[in-house]
Amino acid sequence: MADPRFFTVAGPFTIAEIARRTGAAIAGAVAADRVLTDVAPLGSAGPDELSFLGNPKYLDALRRTRAGAAFVHPDRAAAAPPGLTLLLTPAPYRAYAIAAQAFYPDPLPVPGIAPSAVVDPSARLGAGCAVEAGAVIGARVEIGREALIGAHAVIGPGCILGDSVRLGAHASLSHCIVGARVRIYPGARIGQDGFGFAPDPAGHVKVPQLGRVIIGDDVEIGANTTIDRGAGPDTVIGAGTMIDNLVQIGHNVEVGRGCVLVAQMGISGSTRLGDFVMIGGQSGLTGHLRIGNGARIAGQSGVMRDVAPGETVMGSPAVPIRDHHRQVVLLRRLAAKKGD
Amino acid sequence: MADPRFFTVAGPFTIAEIARRTGAAIAGAVAADRVLTDVAPLGSAGPDELSFLGNPKYLDALRRTRAGAAFVHPDRAAAAPPGLTLLLTPAPYRAYAIAAQAFYPDPLPVPGIAPSAVVDPSARLGAGCAVEAGAVIGARVEIGREALIGAHAVIGPGCILGDSVRLGAHASLSHCIVGARVRIYPGARIGQDGFGFAPDPAGHVKVPQLGRVIIGDDVEIGANTTIDRGAGPDTVIGAGTMIDNLVQIGHNVEVGRGCVLVAQMGISGSTRLGDFVMIGGQSGLTGHLRIGNGARIAGQSGVMRDVAPGETVMGSPAVPIRDHHRQVVLLRRLAAKKGD
Amino acid sequence: MADPRFFTVAGPFTIAEIARRTGAAIAGAVAADRVLTDVAPLGSAGPDELSFLGNPKYLDALRRTRAGAAFVHPDRAAAAPPGLTLLLTPAPYRAYAIAAQAFYPDPLPVPGIAPSAVVDPSARLGAGCAVEAGAVIGARVEIGREALIGAHAVIGPGCILGDSVRLGAHASLSHCIVGARVRIYPGARIGQDGFGFAPDPAGHVKVPQLGRVIIGDDVEIGANTTIDRGAGPDTVIGAGTMIDNLVQIGHNVEVGRGCVLVAQMGISGSTRLGDFVMIGGQSGLTGHLRIGNGARIAGQSGVMRDVAPGETVMGSPAVPIRDHHRQVVLLRRLAAKKGD
Repeated sequence: MADPRFFTVAGPFTIAEIARRTGAAIAGAVAADRVLTDVAPLGSAGPDELSFLGNPKYLDALRRTRAGAAFVHPDRAAAAPPGLTLLLTPAPYRAYAIAAQAFYPDPLPVPGIAPSAVVDPSARLGAGCAVEAGAVIGARVEIGREALIGAHAVIGPGCILGDSVRLGAHASLSHCIVGARVRIYPGARIGQDGFGFAPDPAGHVKVPQLGRVIIGDDVEIGANTTIDRGAGPDTVIGAGTMIDNLVQIGHNVEVGRGCVLVAQMGISGSTRLGDFVMIGGQSGLTGHLRIGNGARIAGQSGVMRDVAPGETVMGSPAVPIRDHHRQVVLLRRLAAKKGD
Repeated sequence: MADPRFFTVAGPFTIAEIARRTGAAIAGAVAADRVLTDVAPLGSAGPDELSFLGNPKYLDALRRTRAGAAFVHPDRAAAAPPGLTLLLTPAPYRAYAIAAQAFYPDPLPVPGIAPSAVVDPSARLGAGCAVEAGAVIGARVEIGREALIGAHAVIGPGCILGDSVRLGAHASLSHCIVGARVRIYPGARIGQDGFGFAPDPAGHVKVPQLGRVIIGDDVEIGANTTIDRGAGPDTVIGAGTMIDNLVQIGHNVEVGRGCVLVAQMGISGSTRLGDFVMIGGQSGLTGHLRIGNGARIAGQSGVMRDVAPGETVMGSPAVPIRDHHRQVVLLRRLAAKKGD
Repeated sequence: MADPRFFTVAGPFTIAEIARRTGAAIAGAVAADRVLTDVAPLGSAGPDELSFLGNPKYLDALRRTRAGAAFVHPDRAAAAPPGLTLLLTPAPYRAYAIAAQAFYPDPLPVPGIAPSAVVDPSARLGAGCAVEAGAVIGARVEIGREALIGAHAVIGPGCILGDSVRLGAHASLSHCIVGARVRIYPGARIGQDGFGFAPDPAGHVKVPQLGRVIIGDDVEIGANTTIDRGAGPDTVIGAGTMIDNLVQIGHNVEVGRGCVLVAQMGISGSTRLGDFVMIGGQSGLTGHLRIGNGARIAGQSGVMRDVAPGETVMGSPAVPIRDHHRQVVLLRRLAAKKGD
């Protein structure tokens, strides 16, 4: 059970209700009106708790689980113990995620503006917004309904935020337009000037950065991540993209829909990503590249050329993953030969 | 045109005025008293707008541009269409930067101290300073004229900041002396203790960090970048150096003048950089190195030895760039041979 | 001498007192009641100052020093000049650290809560705590004695902090339990949601993150570092571990005691480190690994497999350091042969 200092469990829910919400089919020790009080891993779940088998390497834990019910792929149903109610679904982890959201829903913002917040009189906030202590909301800002503006968050003049945005403590926004249900974690920096200047031994000359940052619906932006605004064109983050902590996105970058950018990776100016691109942690992409839909870039890669749709690359410089593996194996073998 | 929610265009300016400010020579369809209202890329600029050709790969865009005027290198003047007024200069991008600053000047700080700011009575601020909501200015701080202290910025006791410094939202400074016209972006951390301790299995023993951070004039420090103060000597950033986002500078590091440090790179303690050193994103330098004037270090390099003035290195471990390319090509070729 | 704008020297101390506090044995030009007023490097120390020889490459500086006293390893005592009082110890740098702490103790927090701080009425603070301007302390927070909560720091509901914790400006905590004497530097982000979701082309589904962050006593956490809370299990940082700036720690990670994690390194979800593991800057560890006690991982390594206790690895992918050196040397040699 999650620590009640920090989490409040909702529910309980009947198995039937869980099945309805997740689209899973009830099987096994059928008990649709049985009541579940919480979620838990297979190994520790009790008879009132809901679990799941996501990874086949936990099949043994499924065999021994005391959970009341579990999401399981139909192909793995045979491994379930007799007392377990099965919730069959082709995507058990996804179903678990939906169920866990039911047990632990995001607390709704408590509407109101903290006395220490500083909200410009020309800003417009929708119904149900919560503005926490010390938040600063600039002139002409527009915020949708039921947004949560965290403690000390700073929103610069003119920014637009959609419904149900959640802005973490200390995040700062400027020059940006943010879609609905976007979550921005603490300390993220969005919309500051890009790194643009004309190099000159007598003193580099700053180039005004005249674009914006446009963020689609349902995007997540991790803690202390930085996204610079465009130099003229905009910097764009497509709907549903997930960005981890400490990521750097340069000016004019365009990220497609549903991409996943893991911690500490960075993208240089004007590079464009298609949809559903996945990039591992600490990877870096140079500027002005095109990365196709569904491309995958392994962690710590250094990408200096375009990547085709669906291609998987790895290494620094990045090459197709099969070539990378060959290079690694070859080098290891040659070095072993030369050794004593 | 830049989004008027966020940007206000100044001007208009005659071509003659632009030529005067940038030192460019008027040629082509000469029309010195023609009025320009904005800047725009070659492809989208209209007859009242100013553009530039920086990169020869856009020569075609120059041929077809409808811009009223453009900065062009004299060698490329022949490609200009008949109606275009040319502003000839050996450094078109630099000239564009100066002109764009004229059209989009940094808004002057609106002098005054926000009611929610907390300014120690012993702090001294020059004329024309703006202190935004929630900023905290400690005891004995001295700030020059026309500085902008962003929302929630925190300046620790004793810090000195020059004229026209711009400190972004949520930046924090301590133990530092900052030159004139320095720009510090949101969330930068400057002057905290370096990572210094005597390792000990019974408990690492912290070594007091007794130095400062000294930042020259006209430096830029990116969002969420961290610069630790010296352990005894100071950490020093030379005038005119440009530092991108999420960069780490360790204690006692000395960075020369006019250097360029791209995002997510890091420098370990006591390493010294000469002037005009350029270092690509995600590179790392170990401690106690000497990097000569004008050296260049490619992105994602790992530098574990001194780099000579003017030398260009790449790779991890970094080697002269020509050697690096050879290694990459060789490995690719050998792996291809061994493959099926 | 450290800049008095920023530092206040304590003392003076007799050599006998210094010897007593550090366990060093007095030798050389014995003068136990001589008074020392400050610490300084060998090269600049004067007769009233205390220094140390940590690294044998400074033996020459020892020979020429004008310092009044110095910590020296017994094996190096012969190199000392005649007028120098020796403080013999097998760990001179550690002894210096303790002595420097005596001369430059951390200023005790000045108890009190700044008028602009926002402290929930249900929070409980121990005696002697200082809460600086704009700090936000949530409901049911518990803080021990003599803690320093920096300007604009934000502590979410329910968090528990031990005695003498020092929380830097702008740090944000949520869902965490923090031991005694922990130092958290400016801008660190601790306890936000981990990067957990079920990937889905129709929209990635967020998985509620139901764990906490548990931080042992005497831990240091650097500026702008991010530590996500667990997904169900906790994220754990063992006592005495030192974490540098801009480090990323994913959900469910367990870090042992006394580890050293250098700047910009990152650890993916569910990886476990033993005690006294040392990891260089910009290294990355993939998820679900086991890193044994005392393992060492060189800077910029990419670790994709378990590392045995005491093993040293390097490279991306990381291999035993001897193998890495062989690979580097071999590749350099082959490429040189192939070159013209």
